[in-house]
Amino acid sequence: MTDYKNLGIRQVFVDAKEKVTGRARYLDDMTFPDQLIGKILRSPHPHARIRSIDTSEAEALEGVRAVLTAKDAPRNRFGMEIADCDIFAIDKVRYVGDEVAAVAAETAEIAREALKRIRVDYELLPVVDDPLRAMAPEAPLVHEDLKSNVVKEYHISRGDVEADFAACDYVFEHEFSTHRVSGLYLEPFGAAAWWESNGRLTMWTGMQAMFQGRNELARALGIDPTRITMKSPFIGGAFGAKIWLRNFHPIVALLARKAGRPVKLVLTREEEQLTTRPRVAPRMKVKLGMMKDGTLVCKQSEIVADNGAYSWAAPKVLLNMAMRTDCLYRFRSSKTDAYLVYTNLIPTSGFRGYGNSQMHFALESFIDMCCRKVGLDPVEVRLRNCVHKGDVTLHRWKIKSCGLDDCIAKAAEAIRKDRRPVEEGNGRIRRGIGLACMTHVSGNRSGDKFDGSGAMVRIQEDGSVFVFSGEADMGQGAKTVFAQIAAETLGVPIESITIMPIDTDVSPFALGSYSSRVTTVGGKAVLLACRQVREQVLDLAAAMTGRPVETLDLDEGVVVAAEGEPLSLPLRKVAYQAIRTNAGVSLTAFITYDPPTEGADKDFYGDYSSAYTYGAHAVEVEVDTVTGKVKVLRVVAAHDVGRTVNELGLQGQINGGVAQGIGWCLYENMLFDKGHPVNASLHGYTLMTIADMPEIESVIVESNDPVGPYGAKGVGEPTLIPTAPAIANAIEDACGVRIVDLPITPEKVYRALRKNGH
Amino acid sequence: MTDYKNLGIRQVFVDAKEKVTGRARYLDDMTFPDQLIGKILRSPHPHARIRSIDTSEAEALEGVRAVLTAKDAPRNRFGMEIADCDIFAIDKVRYVGDEVAAVAAETAEIAREALKRIRVDYELLPVVDDPLRAMAPEAPLVHEDLKSNVVKEYHISRGDVEADFAACDYVFEHEFSTHRVSGLYLEPFGAAAWWESNGRLTMWTGMQAMFQGRNELARALGIDPTRITMKSPFIGGAFGAKIWLRNFHPIVALLARKAGRPVKLVLTREEEQLTTRPRVAPRMKVKLGMMKDGTLVCKQSEIVADNGAYSWAAPKVLLNMAMRTDCLYRFRSSKTDAYLVYTNLIPTSGFRGYGNSQMHFALESFIDMCCRKVGLDPVEVRLRNCVHKGDVTLHRWKIKSCGLDDCIAKAAEAIRKDRRPVEEGNGRIRRGIGLACMTHVSGNRSGDKFDGSGAMVRIQEDGSVFVFSGEADMGQGAKTVFAQIAAETLGVPIESITIMPIDTDVSPFALGSYSSRVTTVGGKAVLLACRQVREQVLDLAAAMTGRPVETLDLDEGVVVAAEGEPLSLPLRKVAYQAIRTNAGVSLTAFITYDPPTEGADKDFYGDYSSAYTYGAHAVEVEVDTVTGKVKVLRVVAAHDVGRTVNELGLQGQINGGVAQGIGWCLYENMLFDKGHPVNASLHGYTLMTIADMPEIESVIVESNDPVGPYGAKGVGEPTLIPTAPAIANAIEDACGVRIVDLPITPEKVYRALRKNGH
Repeated sequence: MTDYKNLGIRQVFVDAKEKVTGRARYLDDMTFPDQLIGKILRSPHPHARIRSIDTSEAEALEGVRAVLTAKDAPRNRFGMEIADCDIFAIDKVRYVGDEVAAVAAETAEIAREALKRIRVDYELLPVVDDPLRAMAPEAPLVHEDLKSNVVKEYHISRGDVEADFAACDYVFEHEFSTHRVSGLYLEPFGAAAWWESNGRLTMWTGMQAMFQGRNELARALGIDPTRITMKSPFIGGAFGAKIWLRNFHPIVALLARKAGRPVKLVLTREEEQLTTRPRVAPRMKVKLGMMKDGTLVCKQSEIVADNGAYSWAAPKVLLNMAMRTDCLYRFRSSKTDAYLVYTNLIPTSGFRGYGNSQMHFALESFIDMCCRKVGLDPVEVRLRNCVHKGDVTLHRWKIKSCGLDDCIAKAAEAIRKDRRPVEEGNGRIRRGIGLACMTHVSGNRSGDKFDGSGAMVRIQEDGSVFVFSGEADMGQGAKTVFAQIAAETLGVPIESITIMPIDTDVSPFALGSYSSRVTTVGGKAVLLACRQVREQVLDLAAAMTGRPVETLDLDEGVVVAAEGEPLSLPLRKVAYQAIRTNAGVSLTAFITYDPPTEGADKDFYGDYSSAYTYGAHAVEVEVDTVTGKVKVLRVVAAHDVGRTVNELGLQGQINGGVAQGIGWCLYENMLFDKGHPVNASLHGYTLMTIADMPEIESVIVESNDPVGPYGAKGVGEPTLIPTAPAIANAIEDACGVRIVDLPITPEKVYRALRKNGH
Repeated sequence: MTDYKNLGIRQVFVDAKEKVTGRARYLDDMTFPDQLIGKILRSPHPHARIRSIDTSEAEALEGVRAVLTAKDAPRNRFGMEIADCDIFAIDKVRYVGDEVAAVAAETAEIAREALKRIRVDYELLPVVDDPLRAMAPEAPLVHEDLKSNVVKEYHISRGDVEADFAACDYVFEHEFSTHRVSGLYLEPFGAAAWWESNGRLTMWTGMQAMFQGRNELARALGIDPTRITMKSPFIGGAFGAKIWLRNFHPIVALLARKAGRPVKLVLTREEEQLTTRPRVAPRMKVKLGMMKDGTLVCKQSEIVADNGAYSWAAPKVLLNMAMRTDCLYRFRSSKTDAYLVYTNLIPTSGFRGYGNSQMHFALESFIDMCCRKVGLDPVEVRLRNCVHKGDVTLHRWKIKSCGLDDCIAKAAEAIRKDRRPVEEGNGRIRRGIGLACMTHVSGNRSGDKFDGSGAMVRIQEDGSVFVFSGEADMGQGAKTVFAQIAAETLGVPIESITIMPIDTDVSPFALGSYSSRVTTVGGKAVLLACRQVREQVLDLAAAMTGRPVETLDLDEGVVVAAEGEPLSLPLRKVAYQAIRTNAGVSLTAFITYDPPTEGADKDFYGDYSSAYTYGAHAVEVEVDTVTGKVKVLRVVAAHDVGRTVNELGLQGQINGGVAQGIGWCLYENMLFDKGHPVNASLHGYTLMTIADMPEIESVIVESNDPVGPYGAKGVGEPTLIPTAPAIANAIEDACGVRIVDLPITPEKVYRALRKNGH
């Protein structure tokens, strides 16, 4: 293995100092000259007709500078796959939180007071709060202009499942469900905007996908995307809920236009809980065909997923749910029928795992259930069936690197060591272990669409390096990974590198930080741009020294002779020569990288990610059989990351992913009563606290991907995916109780234990 | 001549609407969050030792957030050729206006009050206010660490002047002088700055040379240049006085650091008049050798120029004064001895014409004086001697395009037409005409230093075009010229082009807007980048349509088939294909262009500009022989511009240059009494008003330069250069009076008339 100076190390985040000293500026830390504060009036009803809105009292309030409702906004329907969003609710509201009106005022207090003075006359409509009922022909329509509440359906078939099931030794079938949870990033989402003197719009907002956000905003406002400049401050977490546009983005722009001043709007925590984009909530019926020796043959599933009131990424999320786990094992055939259904609940969308986590919960729970039934070791079954490097899966994914078997074996081995006693307190406390594994993508090409990233690298006249990428760092450490890749590729100290903030006028086009693509795709673009600039530097150094370019190298910011001849030419000198003399070289590279993938065809066949990631979590839990409370004691998280770039960042991702996975599995739940949220604040929404954090052991498997930069693959989402099914498996191991509907609350465990005779 | 759609037209400035509606934001229109106002305490004495400074009362004032003197500032001497500047005066002050202390306070009122409370104890020193006296060995030293008050001297000799003078039919000798005048741009200079959370400095300032300003500021502060981001707001005029750093730039940065908040400082008009960088004021002794037929043979001069208290660009200005007019005519030999001398007056520097205007005043006055003496027609003499395309001058300038003879002939012809009577009111009013011509550069390479420019051109996914250049538009219309060149080269409508604001982190490296280089060098860089991007577009269009690339063209933003075949592929579609699909092309070019020039060697030989400009002004004046008052009636301004890009902008330059030339010649003068400015405000400083503006007729000569973009050359400075000598010549033609010392005040004319017996 090559000896890298800047990779595989424990690199403190390049922006750590700014963050820990509190000097890093998030949107709410920024004040814009003459700014007004924007606030949104939201629907208190899950489904209601708007008879009238009276804003006159609000407009009359001293300090109010703009009041808007649907009649003041352009009516360009926008959305991701399906354009079903309006800037403000027109004629009717579809969920509690729907945008009805907005104000901009001199202070937040005045804005809040103005909201109170807007009178909306609603006529209540019947509420659709269950996707199965919503599919019934007589169900009220959430969107009356559409014929049905079914947003999207997929019917995907590979091989002959009927025949395969008929030939199987065992056929199992069960139903699973998962639920809505919130990303609960530390920093609530928001935006500030104003219109420039040349008529262009500037918007500050911490989005994961700034260029796509620019397009979506342009579509909502009915202007050209490049009339908008999107700039990103620091982002305090995102987890998928900040990838795409929210209604407040065009609202802020319109308020700024009406008031003729900058307007800033940051959601309150309560608004976030009402209107964030939580995980899509599906019911998943799964059927598995298996041979006596544990060979997994075929898989069939039927999914009905709750989309909520508006569709954004949920169709894509459903597609992932429908397909991705088929590529975890060597299934011979599969069939999925999947339905996404409108309800009058909060709209769902992408959340770390992006649908993949939901079906992994079902499949990875189910494999243990099946194995237990026929007396097979689930770890052995996984090892027997898991995919390997060189495989082409039934969806035609080409597996170019794969450490899945290693992950399973190492996680299983580690969790079995140093186990605590399986019983304590006369059997009140029961302990067990469980394992689950996962696969995910590092990038995701849809059809013939671009799935790459750009990078611009400039060496300045003093030898310092500016790296421009359009891929967001929402706290996950992208800036640090880019800086490491740049330092390694160029041969300069990491301190000389500045990762520039995202500005859509300047940053190279980028799709954004989702699909765990930042390191693999954005990082590769940085690598390629650095390589080009490095060549420019060495060419000039060759001309300056009269030595052949192939004998020169850049190391720690100094041009050195490869053969150890005495030569010491600082990059600073080469850069000055390039830029300030008649050498006239810009020492700049601007590149676009698009990974060598195909994109899925109309039947969803295709190798749409350049690298697939794998992992296995093994957990040890204890169950208090009197209260039903589950405590996770230990998690071994084994991940095939291709190659470690920043070990510290990787462990951060693993710790965060595991914590969020436990939260999803045991603690968090967005609850509704007839469409009304009942716990949309941190008072009612249960989060895991530090007291319940288990010991986490990371196992890094390096499969050295042939495409990713220096072999690296994405790890952002994978770290969360297998945690929940591993816990469910461990609970059954501990106390014989199997919970198939998330979250696994003490009440569910308690009731199941009682049913089992405890 | 090729038929251009976007060149040679009357293009309204692309930012005209913003400016006339008052929406364009100049520095003082900008408010930065939490900003403080900075103010500077300046020396009231031309020369004094600082015994002590007591800032305690100022510091104690409520609302004062930072107080600084020399003891708080880094001591990195800075300057352009000679590092003789400190951020604050150390131990002594050298002119009235020298920076002694500074404060940052919550309001301008508090800041002003704080300045009043700073106690400085001065010990007065003898004042040096005349460069000739300053050269004497016993003169007090302005800079005691230097051995003499002579800042710089040049001794340049070409051919054998001694022998040539001896062989001439006529030898003439005379002395001329010009004076300090102020640029008097509408917008006073200023800066705002703050330190970012990552320790970098952001500064907003409307400088002409932002990258060089960044370097100079870095040097003053003792940090790396790339730790600074310089951003430019709109600039309200500059004329050379905003090219380089002023002391307030590092002062604002230091105030911001000490206060931990943004600080904005905009000079008052009075401060501008005290500390702006006025035109270098020389005495010029000129000796000319001529044959009977009017052939100019040789030229000798001795220049003693007043530098003022600190040197910035004055050495370069002196060098231009010493050399450039030698290349206006086909002199066989020349010799110049030039001295630049410190005084305790306001420091001089570059001002539109950059030294060239001063010596043109002397030479172009003198040629008329000589011709009058020996009865030759000065127009004929100029035509006989002027340089032509193909010439290599005695300084080795290679004249690749030249319309000088055309300019002279056309200006002379036009001014002779429609003349008013030469006398009126019984001889009280006398009218006359005069002509003078000029040469100047379009870029200026010093030694082996870079003299080029960069450009980045990006086509966005909606087909709009962003052009990044580091060359400033200080009101002269650079943005419009760049947009026209981009529209023409790409084949898109000008409306689809946005010229991006300057930001040193992002804009390609550029030397800045001086030496009339913006169109020629910056515009050429834009052209070359556009050509590259156009190729990228057509290559992709060829792939999309299956047609050979050479049959395709871009016209008005649409890809068309050259042969008129039916094809209509909007750029918008190609751009979308490039950026949003797996075509994966960035449609971006980042180029560095360095013109094919040599730079001067150590003896100042060399072809240091890619194009030289020429022009002739002919004027008609009337003199009131009773009062001595001169009124300019008409100016014909003929200029070889290479190729007209924007006729409207060109006329604006000509009108402005002529007005400023008249102002310099007849009205403006910065006056001093023993080193004390006596008219450093708009009350005392006489400006020409609109009532005195003459009729101006522009004559455009197109010599089609082979290097400039589409043949264009710079016109920024040339338009001012010949106005003053043409007026002086016309005055003598009108009333027989020759004034050789600028300005030509009524008093001087009156006295000369009386001496002549009027």
